[in-house]
Amino acid sequence: MTDAPTARDLAPRILAGDRRALARAVTLVESTRPDHRADATALIEALRKPTADLGRQALRIGLSGTPGVGKSTFIEAFGMALVEGGLRVAVLAVDPSSSRSGGSILGDKTRMDRLSREPAAFIRPSPSATHLGGVARRTREAVALCEAAGFDVVLIETVGVGQSETMVAQMCDVFVLLLAPAGGDELQGVKRGIMEMADLILVNKADGDLKPAATRTVADYAGALRLLRKRPQDPEGFPKALPVSAMTGAGIAEAWAEVQALARWRKDQGWWDRARATQAAHWFEAEVREGLLSRLHRDPDLRRAMADQAKAVAEGRLTPDAAAAEILSNL
Amino acid sequence: MTDAPTARDLAPRILAGDRRALARAVTLVESTRPDHRADATALIEALRKPTADLGRQALRIGLSGTPGVGKSTFIEAFGMALVEGGLRVAVLAVDPSSSRSGGSILGDKTRMDRLSREPAAFIRPSPSATHLGGVARRTREAVALCEAAGFDVVLIETVGVGQSETMVAQMCDVFVLLLAPAGGDELQGVKRGIMEMADLILVNKADGDLKPAATRTVADYAGALRLLRKRPQDPEGFPKALPVSAMTGAGIAEAWAEVQALARWRKDQGWWDRARATQAAHWFEAEVREGLLSRLHRDPDLRRAMADQAKAVAEGRLTPDAAAAEILSNL
Repeated sequence: MTDAPTARDLAPRILAGDRRALARAVTLVESTRPDHRADATALIEALRKPTADLGRQALRIGLSGTPGVGKSTFIEAFGMALVEGGLRVAVLAVDPSSSRSGGSILGDKTRMDRLSREPAAFIRPSPSATHLGGVARRTREAVALCEAAGFDVVLIETVGVGQSETMVAQMCDVFVLLLAPAGGDELQGVKRGIMEMADLILVNKADGDLKPAATRTVADYAGALRLLRKRPQDPEGFPKALPVSAMTGAGIAEAWAEVQALARWRKDQGWWDRARATQAAHWFEAEVREGLLSRLHRDPDLRRAMADQAKAVAEGRLTPDAAAAEILSNL
Repeated sequence: MTDAPTARDLAPRILAGDRRALARAVTLVESTRPDHRADATALIEALRKPTADLGRQALRIGLSGTPGVGKSTFIEAFGMALVEGGLRVAVLAVDPSSSRSGGSILGDKTRMDRLSREPAAFIRPSPSATHLGGVARRTREAVALCEAAGFDVVLIETVGVGQSETMVAQMCDVFVLLLAPAGGDELQGVKRGIMEMADLILVNKADGDLKPAATRTVADYAGALRLLRKRPQDPEGFPKALPVSAMTGAGIAEAWAEVQALARWRKDQGWWDRARATQAAHWFEAEVREGLLSRLHRDPDLRRAMADQAKAVAEGRLTPDAAAAEILSNL
């Protein structure tokens, strides 16, 4: 980030939809250097009001799926369908497990060959691993940057591991789970807790030999979803399970229609704004919490004391409450 | 709590298994008065080492179920079976939604008529509503008191609402979900997120006219459970769904056998101790977090600032991060 453009330079270019400026801004929000952090915060703040005044609000779609379900191919097909419909689409990846520098589940953009060459698309791989709190902030800020740049849809892609789904669910308007067909008794292996967040379950590879298995898997999940209680933020019939084929394009239009129908209903019923306000409040409190705790971890003496107490607690030498009381009394 | 006995008096009586002393101690840990709090902490600490030296470790069973599934009847039948098998059983209720003073989902003990009269049983309704953090601490301390008093099994009962299941799951060794049979297309209404925590799903009322529906419901849930990924802490075949009848007693012995088999496997494989250590570490960090946050809420100026910022964030006037940064910079 030599000769990094200042927030002042970047803001108007982002608002003009300049993808290179957007890419630079995302790099800025990913940086952990204190001066970059300050620049990033200033930039986000400078964009907040113009974005609101322009009425720019993207449809934020969370997309979760384990490796092998064909996520990149799906994003390519889904993204191209939106772009061909005249929409601007941004794709952000969240992969806190990635440890390669610049590595990501998206890997090189060659896996989204067509979409990455579209002027109306912006694809950004996951930054290298940082702690989940940092990833959450970076992703929220990247989403805000994409909204400022006038993107209609922001796809937030995440791999089906760890806590990243919960995090993504807290920053998207619609959450989509992508699955592969399961054959017969074969277990699908959906991580517990992910299914419950899904607004839409898409079973990919509903083509060729796998089509019957995909149909059966859709029916299985539709059945499982019916066993769960209807959430107030869902219209009748949601969450839904549908077959898609990223390869043939079958079901892609239907899936997009369902996402839109759900988004429209939630907007009409006030759930959209309410969810965004709740999410914002959640992140505010999470940031305060995180900030307080990071002070605990920053001070070397306190950090040592926390580690010692945690060990004593795990070994049963202290109750969690007594250990916490001791830490708190020393603050 | 006039002439409350001191921690010093109560400890040996609790270790001797005195139920009246135990009841007084639970009342003490439920009190929010600062002097009672200090006494409670001292008592818990005084009991910690003797409890460990005596090797007293109860099997902590979390039990969740919405009203109407027959939870009290089930606890009566299940508890009586254990007592008749020579075990000592404590029942604690967690109901943060209860607002009646002393009110609880257990209500009066008359709903567990036989069990409440057993000398080997101890039943304690939920205290009146406090914030969830307070309920968690009180329940953990009550569990510790019951273990100190030599109870073999501690049943922690919770109603299927809100965050209380997650909380109970973090303090029990085995989590049981009790359901009623669903007829045909009728929705069961299991809260999302609860099913994923269950080690055992028991479908109650598997008797008389409802038996076929119960059998079908068991099959439905067994199918849904198969769609979820096997957790490392589960032996082959778990989580499991089984029919029971609290009324006729059918399936109660089988359910207990499954709980024991699961507990034994987890002990043999080291999951039991690991889970308890993880839970202790979780509660330690939760207490530190809570303690830090409660300082935020205790200071009236800060409290006002937090509320103002939360409002600004919800209304979109400030980003969550900028709002949090402002709060943190003023600490």
